Amino acid sequence: MMKARVIVTLKNGVLDPQGQAIEGSLASLSFGGVSNVRQGKVFDFEIEGTDEQAARSQIKAMCEKLLANTVIENFAIEISH
Amino acid sequence: MMKARVIVTLKNGVLDPQGQAIEGSLASLSFGGVSNVRQGKVFDFEIEGTDEQAARSQIKAMCEKLLANTVIENFAIEISH
Repeated sequence: MMKARVIVTLKNGVLDPQGQAIEGSLASLSFGGVSNVRQGKVFDFEIEGTDEQAARSQIKAMCEKLLANTVIENFAIEISH
Repeated sequence: MMKARVIVTLKNGVLDPQGQAIEGSLASLSFGGVSNVRQGKVFDFEIEGTDEQAARSQIKAMCEKLLANTVIENFAIEISH
């Protein structure tokens, strides 16, 4: 059993209205000096087995099919034992 | 200018229907061996200054006031120069 984390972020150049809204809210709460806010998603899960390379390959397929929209999003995979 | 990443995750014991839905979808796509799927949020942004300790303290306040619901969510802060 391994623990995995997938972080899905918007690609550079893709507009992020949600991030802009958060940036506006932070400014109105007097949190200054914060810029370029981008919101993404994180998925934590457990995956059976001990073969990290096989797990990484399966998780990559999971990202491409379900977890990320690869047209506008990047994904990063972290695995820990 | 420092880069910061905040990762907000549900606390243990808090139900995550969205995570369960993703787990079901993965199973129906024949991705086996995946369990305990939990979805969280990630915020990437830039913050002015070079004092990492001051930045961390400001970001903690930002999490407590806006980015996380500390009743049901944990947050982790990463800062890089």
